[in-house]
Amino acid sequence: MRYKKAILQSVKYLLLQTILFAMKDTESINNHLTNPLLKGLGESDTLAINERSKKLIAEGKKVYRFGLGQSPFPVPERVVEALRLHAPQKDYLPVKGLPILRETVAEFHRKKDGISAQADGVLIGPGSKELVFLLQLVFRGDIIVVSPCWVSYIPQARILGKKISIIRSSYEHKWQLTPALFQDFLEKRIDKEKPALLILNYPGNPDGVSFYESELREIASLARKNKIFILSDEIYGQLNHKGNHLSIGKYYPEGTIISSGLSKWCGAGGWRLGTFTFPKELYWLCDKMAIVASETYTSVSAPIQYAAISAFKGGIKIEEYLWNVRKILSSIGNESAKMLQAAGIKVHDPVGGFYLFLDFSNFQDQLHEIDIYTSKELCTKLLDETGVAILHGSSFSRPKKEFSARMAYVDFDGTRALAAAKTIPLSEPLPEEFNKTYCAKILEGVKQITKWVKDL
Amino acid sequence: MRYKKAILQSVKYLLLQTILFAMKDTESINNHLTNPLLKGLGESDTLAINERSKKLIAEGKKVYRFGLGQSPFPVPERVVEALRLHAPQKDYLPVKGLPILRETVAEFHRKKDGISAQADGVLIGPGSKELVFLLQLVFRGDIIVVSPCWVSYIPQARILGKKISIIRSSYEHKWQLTPALFQDFLEKRIDKEKPALLILNYPGNPDGVSFYESELREIASLARKNKIFILSDEIYGQLNHKGNHLSIGKYYPEGTIISSGLSKWCGAGGWRLGTFTFPKELYWLCDKMAIVASETYTSVSAPIQYAAISAFKGGIKIEEYLWNVRKILSSIGNESAKMLQAAGIKVHDPVGGFYLFLDFSNFQDQLHEIDIYTSKELCTKLLDETGVAILHGSSFSRPKKEFSARMAYVDFDGTRALAAAKTIPLSEPLPEEFNKTYCAKILEGVKQITKWVKDL
Repeated sequence: MRYKKAILQSVKYLLLQTILFAMKDTESINNHLTNPLLKGLGESDTLAINERSKKLIAEGKKVYRFGLGQSPFPVPERVVEALRLHAPQKDYLPVKGLPILRETVAEFHRKKDGISAQADGVLIGPGSKELVFLLQLVFRGDIIVVSPCWVSYIPQARILGKKISIIRSSYEHKWQLTPALFQDFLEKRIDKEKPALLILNYPGNPDGVSFYESELREIASLARKNKIFILSDEIYGQLNHKGNHLSIGKYYPEGTIISSGLSKWCGAGGWRLGTFTFPKELYWLCDKMAIVASETYTSVSAPIQYAAISAFKGGIKIEEYLWNVRKILSSIGNESAKMLQAAGIKVHDPVGGFYLFLDFSNFQDQLHEIDIYTSKELCTKLLDETGVAILHGSSFSRPKKEFSARMAYVDFDGTRALAAAKTIPLSEPLPEEFNKTYCAKILEGVKQITKWVKDL
Repeated sequence: MRYKKAILQSVKYLLLQTILFAMKDTESINNHLTNPLLKGLGESDTLAINERSKKLIAEGKKVYRFGLGQSPFPVPERVVEALRLHAPQKDYLPVKGLPILRETVAEFHRKKDGISAQADGVLIGPGSKELVFLLQLVFRGDIIVVSPCWVSYIPQARILGKKISIIRSSYEHKWQLTPALFQDFLEKRIDKEKPALLILNYPGNPDGVSFYESELREIASLARKNKIFILSDEIYGQLNHKGNHLSIGKYYPEGTIISSGLSKWCGAGGWRLGTFTFPKELYWLCDKMAIVASETYTSVSAPIQYAAISAFKGGIKIEEYLWNVRKILSSIGNESAKMLQAAGIKVHDPVGGFYLFLDFSNFQDQLHEIDIYTSKELCTKLLDETGVAILHGSSFSRPKKEFSARMAYVDFDGTRALAAAKTIPLSEPLPEEFNKTYCAKILEGVKQITKWVKDL
């Protein structure tokens, strides 16, 4: 009897070990079978928080979705109409894009940014993210980004096995690259002759701020002097709240690639169309990117490209749309910032786009007391206790233990808000109760945050 | 006076040297500034020949555009209508694709291919080309292709710095992988334990032929025995002329990824939507690809995904469309093959898709006599002398000096041909004069080829 039991136990043990071994084996085979550069990479954090929020909502919880940065506004009606009209377009379009769209995008930048863009220098891609990836793949040299920076620059470099240099900014520097920070970085650079590409993003994601003209001039001058190319990611350019976005391309035309697209100002993130605009001096980079494009995405969806013409062409209807969108974003962005500031959270007044980058450092002691040491822990706790989803600062390459996070103020019905804003003359500000009526959830979520820090 | 002249000449010489040096310098800087893996890569050959043909047409020449492989048929009306309906869809969709589309694609493969696909194993991409690229980026191991093979597999591997193994087929082997060729390759493989992925494409581009069931079974069994994964590129599957496409996924379910998309059978190449369908055993590969997707193209255009549901859902209207498309392609493909065969060009009767792979080896001596030694020279000469644009065999990884070339029989008005075919009962063959009436340019171009070889 005792033997039987012992044998049974041995058999059980062996079975368990075999199963564990098999599991371990499968896992290690799978790691062995995939590109080691991908190790540790997960789905991009913005998308991950979006899917997590959806799950909580499905469970019946009220969630303030301040995580994903998607425009709340509908695509302008005439642009949607253009897509309907061109739905039967089925031909493969040229790799660099539909010629008339490329010309329209060039004209858009000539008018809006005062640069001398030409159709030949425009590259159309399935989102500017894909174009940034291709640029990183093609360009041989260092990539320089400014922290906090958009979530995808660094993972893209990792996938490609590229070196990336990070210039750390801070709340005091408006989270931006200042000429002084840039100068300091350039002086400390070991191989000063090595080709390099600096990526700037303004109005910024995650910070919502932008540059003064004097800063752009100084950064441009430093870049020129040090032969550093600039990828100027201006995807939020048309969402400068005052409509007076300035591009560094104006001050450093020969070395600047301007990135734009339909995703933010045109509310068409899901349509997937981004643009890069190169100066003549950098057409060789555009050409190399097109070669890779021809072996990967081929060309951007034809009906989408035809529809995009009407968006970039602009006109009075599009300008009206943009002004109303800016008024709403400015109104709710500023009220949110004021409330957060009053509660002791450090945050700059927004200049453009739809983000605020929050610094909870004033609450460091209280957070440590409840065993919260990282921005990720902070955001998880906040989500669990208040339903407010914001994206932890470490997603934007901030130090893990810095209590920073990005809030996107887009969780409201953009169609409804836009319809209401349209009834008010463009030259007049929105009435005081506008935010409460049309962006109530933002105010409510912000209140949840301020209450939460107060109770810490 | 003499001094003055000498000085002037010296100055001229110095100026010239400076200019030449500067030009050389710029060029070398540019090479130095781009990824060395891209060296020598041009735009993909198919796209290049398309743009070249367009140019000749613009110059007023009559060109038979047998180069680019694009479906001549319109997107089915109900699919276009679905795109119109969903034009306002603007949200970023999940990285792997819209859940209902993924389910529809899984159902499509369950019904059409008799495999047990699940929605969780479907990945939607902006064209299957992009998905093949991601797979090559993610998979760690050898990639095996069969020559002749589709133009992009090998350049993609080059861009990624990956090793690729080529199994050479021949006219005698129907340009395909035979079980014997596969067996031979496996026996000679040096590192037999190294993970590997075999890419098959059938009905084939550039060959237009496909496998018998017995061949699929044998290849499946060899792959299983040697632990080799298969990417089964079945983008032309629904264009099997008899409508009886068979997938190797049926015989090797656990190791096969099936590639499909809207581009060929649905006539929507320019829409850019491709699909990969993974078995449960390979979900880990799908997951890794989704990670890279989330850092590159993000998700496929939302309106296009919504519209694609109606295409993959199928139904009587779509089946009617497919049957008529198949009848037309079979009719014109077979007549073309017969004419070419009669003229002494070696070519197999087409089984599916819209390509014929021509072998001019019977004319080798005559070609050598007029100083033509490569397939590229052959195609250039043919284009110059007859206006017929076909794509040289070396684009498909055939030896440069083999006189092979791909002809796409799609240069006719597909909308008109389809409307005419619809008036004939599905069960009846097309009338004898159909090709002459609706695909006249194909017949004319083929005649140009046969006349050209006769006159060599």
